[in-house]
Amino acid sequence: MIDINKAIEALNWQKEPRGLYEPIEYTLASGGKRVRPTLTLIAAEAIVNGSLLNGDAIEQALPAALALEVFHNFTLMHDDVMDRASVRRGQPTVHVKWNDNTAILSGDQMLIEAYKLLSDVPADKLPQVLKWFNEMATGICEGQQLDVDYEHASQVTIEEYLKMIELKTAVLIANALRTGGYIAGANAAEQQALYEYGRHIGIAFQVQDDILDVYGDPKTFGKAIGGDIVCNKKTILLLTALENADPESKAELLQWLMATDCDAQKIAAVTAIYNRLEVREVCEAVMEEQTALALAELDKLPQNEATEKLRQLAERLVTRNS
Amino acid sequence: MIDINKAIEALNWQKEPRGLYEPIEYTLASGGKRVRPTLTLIAAEAIVNGSLLNGDAIEQALPAALALEVFHNFTLMHDDVMDRASVRRGQPTVHVKWNDNTAILSGDQMLIEAYKLLSDVPADKLPQVLKWFNEMATGICEGQQLDVDYEHASQVTIEEYLKMIELKTAVLIANALRTGGYIAGANAAEQQALYEYGRHIGIAFQVQDDILDVYGDPKTFGKAIGGDIVCNKKTILLLTALENADPESKAELLQWLMATDCDAQKIAAVTAIYNRLEVREVCEAVMEEQTALALAELDKLPQNEATEKLRQLAERLVTRNS
Repeated sequence: MIDINKAIEALNWQKEPRGLYEPIEYTLASGGKRVRPTLTLIAAEAIVNGSLLNGDAIEQALPAALALEVFHNFTLMHDDVMDRASVRRGQPTVHVKWNDNTAILSGDQMLIEAYKLLSDVPADKLPQVLKWFNEMATGICEGQQLDVDYEHASQVTIEEYLKMIELKTAVLIANALRTGGYIAGANAAEQQALYEYGRHIGIAFQVQDDILDVYGDPKTFGKAIGGDIVCNKKTILLLTALENADPESKAELLQWLMATDCDAQKIAAVTAIYNRLEVREVCEAVMEEQTALALAELDKLPQNEATEKLRQLAERLVTRNS
Repeated sequence: MIDINKAIEALNWQKEPRGLYEPIEYTLASGGKRVRPTLTLIAAEAIVNGSLLNGDAIEQALPAALALEVFHNFTLMHDDVMDRASVRRGQPTVHVKWNDNTAILSGDQMLIEAYKLLSDVPADKLPQVLKWFNEMATGICEGQQLDVDYEHASQVTIEEYLKMIELKTAVLIANALRTGGYIAGANAAEQQALYEYGRHIGIAFQVQDDILDVYGDPKTFGKAIGGDIVCNKKTILLLTALENADPESKAELLQWLMATDCDAQKIAAVTAIYNRLEVREVCEAVMEEQTALALAELDKLPQNEATEKLRQLAERLVTRNS
């Protein structure tokens, strides 16, 4: 198996002008779980092992894997400017360490670098991989815009919310898997299965994230519990509560949404309403359904060690607490 | 000949979410001279007519031509945020009409849209066109960063300045021409000649822009004369003056660079120093040299109506006054 961290470290950012490349180097060196490129390589492995082709195909999937990781980090750099986020992976964000213009321009260059990496995809596979990459990138920008729109919207349905997180999070994971499989020689049904598996775990992951923000273990969660409640984020928990509440609970909930000066009390009160309305159970059911749909897709793939890794990933997702 | 304005108008931005696509539509509808895509098509025409192939090749160059125009407008959208420019083509810039985040996100989407258009390049030509596009885009980001760096630098050489404008302006024009020619079947020598022609007229154009900012006809120039002098922009005129000045003139010039409250006087005084040092003549010689180099490249191309258009463009450049 290719060491994805080493491959990312091996990318060369020792170029001039430093003001352009140093923030890219800084961002990529700050870690992260490398989930997306790892999934690209596992998908390639699943297909190669299955069809008994040689291991070169996994090597051939590496440029696309790297492109997806660089692209993901580009979205974080620009998102952090737009969200005015000051910390990412325990370090100051680029627009804080440098300035807004640096984050904009180095982010642009990072998006271009992703396309540069992509251009190393074997020529016969490039048109399709580029087309999918562009669709994915478009989905993510659309999802980001919807997220902004929904922040100001008076009403958002759960369906709209799920569509938004699908675009913002799931299509990147789905495309990472499909692209890896395609480069390794997956047929159309396998490409589709990899995409759908990724889409469903992507949605499940984001729903679980919303749940953990309220119900996670403070010792392992990493962030402060209740952050979404404090800032009235329209998570699936809040939307479920608003949709399922009796008039009295709804009024109480809306009252708390207006509170801004008593965070601990607000978290406790809103959590109590969630508990009463069994919001956690409803959302966990959504997550478990998405996970089950993901697992079902795996049956359409060759069964081997790599597919088993994808199965375990989906199963761990449901039980993670951080 | 393809009507490039109609082709740009025919791009569909009637998509959701509107917050993402409306600023793109607004920017592309605001006009501009469409120089870059026009050059792509003329280059294709020059090669096709020359080799007596059919006109399909010009049609095939259209997606790349559009990609280059969309890309160019993406750079303007992000540059305007970074430069805090409030007006572009007589209209409020996107970050003024909407906000910074909109300009960042719609700009990102515009860059992705450029790559989408590019993916319609014939598959056998795509790897090379994508590789060149990425190199060009990188050059433009590097040029933008150098421009920022030089703003704060105590000393910039004319050589450094020419390299910066080559990256910021000329490589896009050069690549527009080379790409059009390549898609139409240009051989390696013709590709190179188109690129070099574009690079030289790109540099000449930017040098001429600097000259016109001081010596242009106020009736036709469009902007206020002397804007660069007022804000101490390190144009080739200022750099030439600083490099060629006797100690006395240099001291006088540096003194005026510190003045901030007497624009008209400052413009008159700095222009007088330029006149004394014959800065205009030196810079015009640079521009004429670049134009001559551009024209020489045309001799390496098939001689036809399209090549003649390129010749006239270079010749008009030297005598333009707006």
